[in-house]
Amino acid sequence: MSYFDAASAVPLHPVARQALQASLDEGWADPARLHREGRRARLLLDAARETAAEAVGCRPDELVFTSSGTRAVHCGIAGALAGRRRVGDHLIVSAVEHSSVLHSADAHEAAGGTVTRVPVGRAGAVATEAFAGALGPGTALACLQSANHEVGTEQPVEEVAAACRAAGVPLLVDAAQSLGWGRVEGDWSLLTASAHKWGGPPGVGLLVVRKGTRFAPQGAVDERESGRAAGFENIPGIVAAAASLRAVRAEAGERAVRLRALTERIRAAVPELVPDVEVVGDPVRRLPGIVTFSCLYVDGETLLHELDRAGFSVSSGSSCTSSTLTPSHVLRAMGVLSEGNVRVSLPSDVRDEDVERFLEILPAAVSAVREKLGAPAPGAAAPATSGGRVVDALGMLCPVPVIELAKVIGDVPVGGLVRVLADDEAARLDIPAWCEMRGQEYVGEEPAARGTAFVVKRLS
Amino acid sequence: MSYFDAASAVPLHPVARQALQASLDEGWADPARLHREGRRARLLLDAARETAAEAVGCRPDELVFTSSGTRAVHCGIAGALAGRRRVGDHLIVSAVEHSSVLHSADAHEAAGGTVTRVPVGRAGAVATEAFAGALGPGTALACLQSANHEVGTEQPVEEVAAACRAAGVPLLVDAAQSLGWGRVEGDWSLLTASAHKWGGPPGVGLLVVRKGTRFAPQGAVDERESGRAAGFENIPGIVAAAASLRAVRAEAGERAVRLRALTERIRAAVPELVPDVEVVGDPVRRLPGIVTFSCLYVDGETLLHELDRAGFSVSSGSSCTSSTLTPSHVLRAMGVLSEGNVRVSLPSDVRDEDVERFLEILPAAVSAVREKLGAPAPGAAAPATSGGRVVDALGMLCPVPVIELAKVIGDVPVGGLVRVLADDEAARLDIPAWCEMRGQEYVGEEPAARGTAFVVKRLS
Repeated sequence: MSYFDAASAVPLHPVARQALQASLDEGWADPARLHREGRRARLLLDAARETAAEAVGCRPDELVFTSSGTRAVHCGIAGALAGRRRVGDHLIVSAVEHSSVLHSADAHEAAGGTVTRVPVGRAGAVATEAFAGALGPGTALACLQSANHEVGTEQPVEEVAAACRAAGVPLLVDAAQSLGWGRVEGDWSLLTASAHKWGGPPGVGLLVVRKGTRFAPQGAVDERESGRAAGFENIPGIVAAAASLRAVRAEAGERAVRLRALTERIRAAVPELVPDVEVVGDPVRRLPGIVTFSCLYVDGETLLHELDRAGFSVSSGSSCTSSTLTPSHVLRAMGVLSEGNVRVSLPSDVRDEDVERFLEILPAAVSAVREKLGAPAPGAAAPATSGGRVVDALGMLCPVPVIELAKVIGDVPVGGLVRVLADDEAARLDIPAWCEMRGQEYVGEEPAARGTAFVVKRLS
Repeated sequence: MSYFDAASAVPLHPVARQALQASLDEGWADPARLHREGRRARLLLDAARETAAEAVGCRPDELVFTSSGTRAVHCGIAGALAGRRRVGDHLIVSAVEHSSVLHSADAHEAAGGTVTRVPVGRAGAVATEAFAGALGPGTALACLQSANHEVGTEQPVEEVAAACRAAGVPLLVDAAQSLGWGRVEGDWSLLTASAHKWGGPPGVGLLVVRKGTRFAPQGAVDERESGRAAGFENIPGIVAAAASLRAVRAEAGERAVRLRALTERIRAAVPELVPDVEVVGDPVRRLPGIVTFSCLYVDGETLLHELDRAGFSVSSGSSCTSSTLTPSHVLRAMGVLSEGNVRVSLPSDVRDEDVERFLEILPAAVSAVREKLGAPAPGAAAPATSGGRVVDALGMLCPVPVIELAKVIGDVPVGGLVRVLADDEAARLDIPAWCEMRGQEYVGEEPAARGTAFVVKRLS
């Protein structure tokens, strides 16, 4: 079994495991107590804070440990917004943030605040000017991830941080995907991260609030962790998190070179091996270990199962893997194909031969799914069957509407139109993406009695 | 070193450690993922939920895992209050709840809600009638701990739950101190607990919301744990928590008998061995392993250090151990002596001889502190020195004002008054407590140019 889903979670780093063991023995007591066991726990906690602060590049008293990266984000955003309530209630986020940031934005909106979601380009990055342009006199906080969790694209954090600083607006950087690789450069004000992403244990997050940043913790609080993370400290987890962060940082340079070469190999090979594939994400400004691609005429969940059967664990941002049946917000914001989406994120101990084997089995796995769904043969001219200019794909889930469109396009005279009636949310993304891949023109959408009519003009 | 602070935290139970080890290997992946590793993590999480639900006595889908007991309380109270917003904004808590409950109540008040804090008797328990009397048409939620964390007194949860049910008001039971001993009986609606109190790892709490209880999670949420506990699940911790809960429950009966005998021994011996001591908490309806007493003319922090030096780790609810310089809210609510307060909470592996040794060294430790503070010799008649009817103890911290009072009482004619000027918060509690212990009359307090004058009448 090859585990290629490192961006979700990785097994505990050996250093983390060792630190966890030791601090289960030494760090189980309440660090607020005056007795020997309490003082010992306090020492461990203080040392872990210093280690983590050193890795982040901040003062120890600017960093608190939370119970998860999500919790760090929720607390950080709520506290920073409340701290600047007098300035205004405007929050800026990129459209491709992690769901924890977007959920915080939703909660802020539900409470009467205003939110700007800065769009991204086709590679998944915000434009600094667009982000800076959203800053206004009533902006209380801006949030930008250091790198995207689904496609690996790095964001222009340093430039955006400078623009925010110039406008006097604090920037919160969600560094969940990148902190194991290095410090986040730039003049940010708040930073969040999650230990289980870098090989630390689950149940530990980081929240950094730079001195001088207004911050008012929300909800019930207590005296622990500077009043920013209530509840008994998980010291064994915290110690393991800090120790493994230091360890992975020491290996980061070498590991990055190795993983970048392997993802480069996948980026280059997949479009050659599998027809009708779009590799997504920035080819250059990206995390070393993530590569994401989407396969036309494939549904993500079935492909995941095919790959799982072949011994590969990957994840997917395709609609079909989530219970909500909508494509991932990241792919949607990028405007790229969402069907048959696969994210490969390599763990640091990946073997070259596992990557080669993945490339070997991928074409057959994709073909198997396409066959099941009755997709048109790749490159084959669509058969000139009888049939109309309207494709009724109502009630059909992705990627079937696109498959149906591909089946009839050959019947349409060059310059003629075809309307695809569909009510699956993914069609809105995938039909334009198909047009781009196939060299056809996407005209737009029209309201229909049921669902929506997506209009396509045959160009060739 | 003997660790007698089990009510704060205990070392990891061997079963918890074993379960943690195993699930670090098997349960590190994201349980929301479809691949093999994700499915394996999901199975572990589901099994842990069933085990914990069995121990609580609820349905698995009523129980979620949170990142701490504090978090369970904060979430549970906020969610239950919001779920019944239309009914009203009235919250009822006992005056001796854990700080996490009281902080939630403070936050509710700060947001415009109303709170009733039901007083307790001298033994630390609420009266069911008093609690029931606080229920009104606008009561959204009531909270009552199963047993008190500082003095061990059990609360009449079953009776209070029945009263709440009759009034249609949900009752939240903070079972942090008792869940390792057994289920909380009665018709409660919500329950919270903390794994590190029963020998589970830190970083895991439980929140149970019975079906039919209105509940609206507050703040940003995600799809994990039924939307009630956001963030990546700490599965190794959760598995260890559930396994150890089952294990300690299996041993609970035997352990309770043993610990109850030992705390009984301490309860009986301390007043015989140490003069001027008040043992606090209910002598019968109490947790097996906790015994708390207060020593006149002693400051808690110095006594803790004396005991620490003698090899015993205990905790204290005295003012002097906390940075805020106010006595514990529990002792204050009970109206008992707060100075020189010691909580002994025995771990399950305590040895009889350690308890005997504690009783051996305690008298000398208390005497040493009293000597340092120049306290009057126990039982000695106060010397008939010259001196006035006003004791100026302004600027002096507990227990000095009481010591000064004891020094002059002999100068006051029987039936005469003495005024103690003091500005330490603890004096308000400790001077009346001293009067009761010494058979003198506490008349009341009067405003003074600085601080407060506490008026005492000499009776004998």
